[in-house]
Amino acid sequence: MKVCLNGRMVPKEEAVISIEDRGFLYGDGLFESIRICSNRPFRWDRHLDRFWTGVQALRLPCPWPGESLRGFAEALLRENRTVDGVLRLALSRGPGRRGYSPRGATHPTLVLSVHPLPDSPSSEPTTWRLRTVGLRILRGDPLARHKTASRLLQVLARLEAEEEGADEALLLNHEGQVAESASGNVFWVERENILTPPLSCGALPGITREVIVELGDRLGWPVREDDIDRERLGSVDGMFLTLTTRGVVEVVELDGQSMPRSARVPRLHRAYLDLVRTECA
Amino acid sequence: MKVCLNGRMVPKEEAVISIEDRGFLYGDGLFESIRICSNRPFRWDRHLDRFWTGVQALRLPCPWPGESLRGFAEALLRENRTVDGVLRLALSRGPGRRGYSPRGATHPTLVLSVHPLPDSPSSEPTTWRLRTVGLRILRGDPLARHKTASRLLQVLARLEAEEEGADEALLLNHEGQVAESASGNVFWVERENILTPPLSCGALPGITREVIVELGDRLGWPVREDDIDRERLGSVDGMFLTLTTRGVVEVVELDGQSMPRSARVPRLHRAYLDLVRTECA
Repeated sequence: MKVCLNGRMVPKEEAVISIEDRGFLYGDGLFESIRICSNRPFRWDRHLDRFWTGVQALRLPCPWPGESLRGFAEALLRENRTVDGVLRLALSRGPGRRGYSPRGATHPTLVLSVHPLPDSPSSEPTTWRLRTVGLRILRGDPLARHKTASRLLQVLARLEAEEEGADEALLLNHEGQVAESASGNVFWVERENILTPPLSCGALPGITREVIVELGDRLGWPVREDDIDRERLGSVDGMFLTLTTRGVVEVVELDGQSMPRSARVPRLHRAYLDLVRTECA
Repeated sequence: MKVCLNGRMVPKEEAVISIEDRGFLYGDGLFESIRICSNRPFRWDRHLDRFWTGVQALRLPCPWPGESLRGFAEALLRENRTVDGVLRLALSRGPGRRGYSPRGATHPTLVLSVHPLPDSPSSEPTTWRLRTVGLRILRGDPLARHKTASRLLQVLARLEAEEEGADEALLLNHEGQVAESASGNVFWVERENILTPPLSCGALPGITREVIVELGDRLGWPVREDDIDRERLGSVDGMFLTLTTRGVVEVVELDGQSMPRSARVPRLHRAYLDLVRTECA
């Protein structure tokens, strides 16, 4: 297995960074996880748009233009003969002085790596049990909009959910509204409607979330945005998550309570898989 | 310069970690910065107490008992002939699988390193210009109690302050109360009183903060805790920060407005330096 480190292909075991890298010291960086299908990245441009938005917001130096990043990604997929999988693209601020100030940290670290899909793609969505955790997201936090390398909240949320026997954590914001899951966006079904919290609730602007909204339009099920608290989630007619690595994940249990299953959920999952295959063909 | 990596002394240039280290991937770790004076760590036990509290809260594996950590620290100080400086002790969850779940990450990464003091110790406190930044801390956030490796909020707060020509950022919580500065705790003087926000405001439980409270008692200036908003800070009689690496830092300007100077601030700074020298003698 090779990885691409600052533009060079190196065996994974030899891909190391300095203990002074600010990604390691302070989580001072960003990443993207991009679905690979038939050797091609799905929605590369949208992932890169989000990446550049983050690079600007964090004032990260990035001497590699988009064409170089695309070239590195394609070379890495060829090198590893990756057909299906996940491409991780990460940029940290690189080595710097002790202390939070990023002054003088002008040599960022870029890492591209490929990973297997967590599940082999299936026409049925993965099913997960969800647990509402105590950790909260600050509604309106500007950092929640970016896929940053400071992800301890998500790590501990997931850990808490797993310790309670669940597969994934449901995160509320400090006002009690549903924001997202540790690793995906949340959708629910009420009667004939498909809904999702607005990004202002504290959700990451997920690429798969965007795609599901598109597919909802195509299928005549336009997705509406709405705030929802935990209590209202207890009486919805279906619930699912969207993740780059898995597409649609159906929520079958929330805090130990079985969730109703909506036929729209597997339908959206299949439409997502079809779209991925078509665009990457 | 040597660093101690997982218990081994290695030249700093050779101290590298895997790109799969969860400290690098997700800021999944903790650290302490400990003042070194006359070859000895100041308040080692208190730093270690805070460290262990964090290790438990984050469920980090740590196979090294406190005596080993102390042994590594002492060996590193000898190796580098460090008389005065800062010792950084960092623990990350080590290499793990892609994804937030920490399952299976059982080989943590421990790094001890020494750094020069940012200022040579002087009987006068460093003076800083402060800037109130837009980023907010969530009041009551359990993660705010630990010195975690997910520190992007502090990095960007500091960056914003520096871009505005200031030395350091003042962070409010989401309710508008003063929480802390990016890298220290906040105190202020009102008439004869010295005050500081309660930790529940979202402040890290600083070791230097503790020491200043102790010294306040000794000097007959007991420190009281109180909530304070930005507006009230505009009419206080003096303001300072406490940092492990600098002791007391006097705030001479806040958002472009000059701050009154209180004679208690340099007095506390000298008492702090005396205490450090006495305990480390």
